[in-house]
Amino acid sequence: MKIINFDHLACAPLLPEAREIMLPLLEEDMGNPLSRHSMGEKPKKALEEARSSVAQLINSKPEEIIFTSCGSESNNQAVKGIAKAYTKKGRHIIASPIEHHSIIHPLKDMEKQGCEVSWLTVDSNGMVNPGEIAGLIREDTVLITVTTASNEIGTLEPIREIGKIAREKDVLFHTDAVAAAGSIEIDVIKDNIDLLSLAGNVFYGPLGTGALYVRKGVRILPLIEGGVQERGLRAGTQNVAAIAGMGAAAEIAKEKLAERRSHLIKLKDRLIRGTLETVPDSFLTGDEVNRLPGHASFCIKFIEGESMLLFLNMAGIAGTSGSTCSSEALKVSHVLEAIGIEPVWAQGSAVFTLGIDNTVEDVELFLKELQKVVERLRQMSPLINSDLAALPIRRKKKEREITPPNLPLN
Amino acid sequence: MKIINFDHLACAPLLPEAREIMLPLLEEDMGNPLSRHSMGEKPKKALEEARSSVAQLINSKPEEIIFTSCGSESNNQAVKGIAKAYTKKGRHIIASPIEHHSIIHPLKDMEKQGCEVSWLTVDSNGMVNPGEIAGLIREDTVLITVTTASNEIGTLEPIREIGKIAREKDVLFHTDAVAAAGSIEIDVIKDNIDLLSLAGNVFYGPLGTGALYVRKGVRILPLIEGGVQERGLRAGTQNVAAIAGMGAAAEIAKEKLAERRSHLIKLKDRLIRGTLETVPDSFLTGDEVNRLPGHASFCIKFIEGESMLLFLNMAGIAGTSGSTCSSEALKVSHVLEAIGIEPVWAQGSAVFTLGIDNTVEDVELFLKELQKVVERLRQMSPLINSDLAALPIRRKKKEREITPPNLPLN
Repeated sequence: MKIINFDHLACAPLLPEAREIMLPLLEEDMGNPLSRHSMGEKPKKALEEARSSVAQLINSKPEEIIFTSCGSESNNQAVKGIAKAYTKKGRHIIASPIEHHSIIHPLKDMEKQGCEVSWLTVDSNGMVNPGEIAGLIREDTVLITVTTASNEIGTLEPIREIGKIAREKDVLFHTDAVAAAGSIEIDVIKDNIDLLSLAGNVFYGPLGTGALYVRKGVRILPLIEGGVQERGLRAGTQNVAAIAGMGAAAEIAKEKLAERRSHLIKLKDRLIRGTLETVPDSFLTGDEVNRLPGHASFCIKFIEGESMLLFLNMAGIAGTSGSTCSSEALKVSHVLEAIGIEPVWAQGSAVFTLGIDNTVEDVELFLKELQKVVERLRQMSPLINSDLAALPIRRKKKEREITPPNLPLN
Repeated sequence: MKIINFDHLACAPLLPEAREIMLPLLEEDMGNPLSRHSMGEKPKKALEEARSSVAQLINSKPEEIIFTSCGSESNNQAVKGIAKAYTKKGRHIIASPIEHHSIIHPLKDMEKQGCEVSWLTVDSNGMVNPGEIAGLIREDTVLITVTTASNEIGTLEPIREIGKIAREKDVLFHTDAVAAAGSIEIDVIKDNIDLLSLAGNVFYGPLGTGALYVRKGVRILPLIEGGVQERGLRAGTQNVAAIAGMGAAAEIAKEKLAERRSHLIKLKDRLIRGTLETVPDSFLTGDEVNRLPGHASFCIKFIEGESMLLFLNMAGIAGTSGSTCSSEALKVSHVLEAIGIEPVWAQGSAVFTLGIDNTVEDVELFLKELQKVVERLRQMSPLINSDLAALPIRRKKKEREITPPNLPLN
């Protein structure tokens, strides 16, 4: 059965152009880019071309790009590498509570080791307040980290305003652009970004590829130490073929950004409107306007999101229930918790991320199937006639909530 | 021009069987192994099959294998992850001075942060002394790390004896088997190994793949924190295609171990004997008997190794001058320093690592070309008639030398 992929953030298809550039590097042109003999020439060239393409996608210089093995590595490298390099300046970090686990977990760990993290408040759409950030910056603040876009609720954060504040106050600013790259414009110069994380698979490159942009002049210490690869900032032989695939995908992403964006927005708008119209007691999570072009996320009351996704899968539609990386854990998402959703409704969450291979017909089929699945599940739901049915969507939030999200550590 | 690859540790060709298993995972079967929908099924299966094959190569259980992105990551993960997990027991580590940079650098860094490292002495072949290790173990020793085989001088370390001592004294034992896997038998049970690093490309899998074996019951903290991948011990979406390729290569490596081994030994013996016979003032580095099957390393007096390798490359032969990871750095190798080679002779070092694709003819051609190249370079060499010509090969070593190798940090 053909599967309709509405889970592009977890896995988008690989572009044929990316695959094509990879194949010779897995065969006759395979080599180690560090080698000084001729077997190293083509791999080295492929690596540097990819570096240039990835740099262009975010308007950086090629030498500001460090290749990593995934977005999570980029995020770990950013927060740990900066904290370690700037210990003399201080140990205070400002972070949003809706960051990806690959930022939250390191920060929670670093808190135990003496770092102080100011966890921002977010509004009911997950939006941080740049004014709050400005007020929290201190002499010993070494890093602000706020995602460009939440992979779980699609909200676009006010990156440009944060970047401006950070630069004015001379504090480094990292943004996790993994979910955003390839569908919205990213410009590290215009936005005053000092560090930025990317993952190749989100813009139709291979799985297991990533990059970290580190602005020239920013000191950072390596997470993986050893050889001189990546200017000594990331040791280990690079997966040249995969990186070349990422580069090809980045080049096309830049070229087709506007076209992709409008295609995705059209489908996403139809999907959101259609769902809210046809599924009673459903609500959108995240910001409706400041939103990733291809991102639709809901809580559907009285049902369990995982069951819904299983039924949708049987109907040939792939979606997810939040951060892919935690989908094995089956815990209430820290993001939904941060935006105040009552846990009982957070259980009914579902995330659909669209891609260039999706069509209007896919969305129409989805809407039909979703309605059927929800009806069927609600017939079995004990929640629908319980006292809980009257529970509001959100818990009342305190005026300023800086408690970190309550997450289990690895 | 066809290049004769005598630099297999830096880059061995990818097995067709490995490539074949990768291709569908880069196309119709691409998906995220964590996904609960059907697009995750084949990637998940591919990942677990690879885990099983890699486990079998070293006689471990599949659940004891953590996939990483390279041998350097595995090494960093091992030493940092154990040190962090066992802080309460102590902060003393025992290490050989001829470890790969991806162990030396983290350890040097950890020394600055309060860890104590006892650097072992090595004999003139780079061999550690298990008795010395036994004598250095203390109440607060958390880890012994000694490479299975040096990538620079080919010496096989007495892993089995070290494992026995470590287990008896209840200290964890890590070995970097990156250079060894696929050409010698590795058995983590027989050898009492607690942690072991691998890289897929050395046994004809893809570049940028790695694994860390962590014996069940050993506590370790993740280097890359975030999602629940790899049992929460290595966050980030896996490069499924590359890992599957590594798995296929591991399966074949196990099956063909004996055949490969005898092929490599035959070529290596001819190469070493031939070189020493035809190139005057050349000497083997590392142990002649306890040696990696396909490894030949020399110092050739009165010439500069890098120039020799460039001339050999022009003649269609690829070799290297030591650790690939430092070949951009052009410093005297810490390994040659540790075995006492005079720096002026260490400059003339060259490493040739043979592979299954090499033939007797390749070796014969190499011997002819090497002789020509050396003669040519020596005609230009200022060293040959200088006072230095009388300098012995090795510096006198102190009785017990536990100074760490003098390495620049990243």
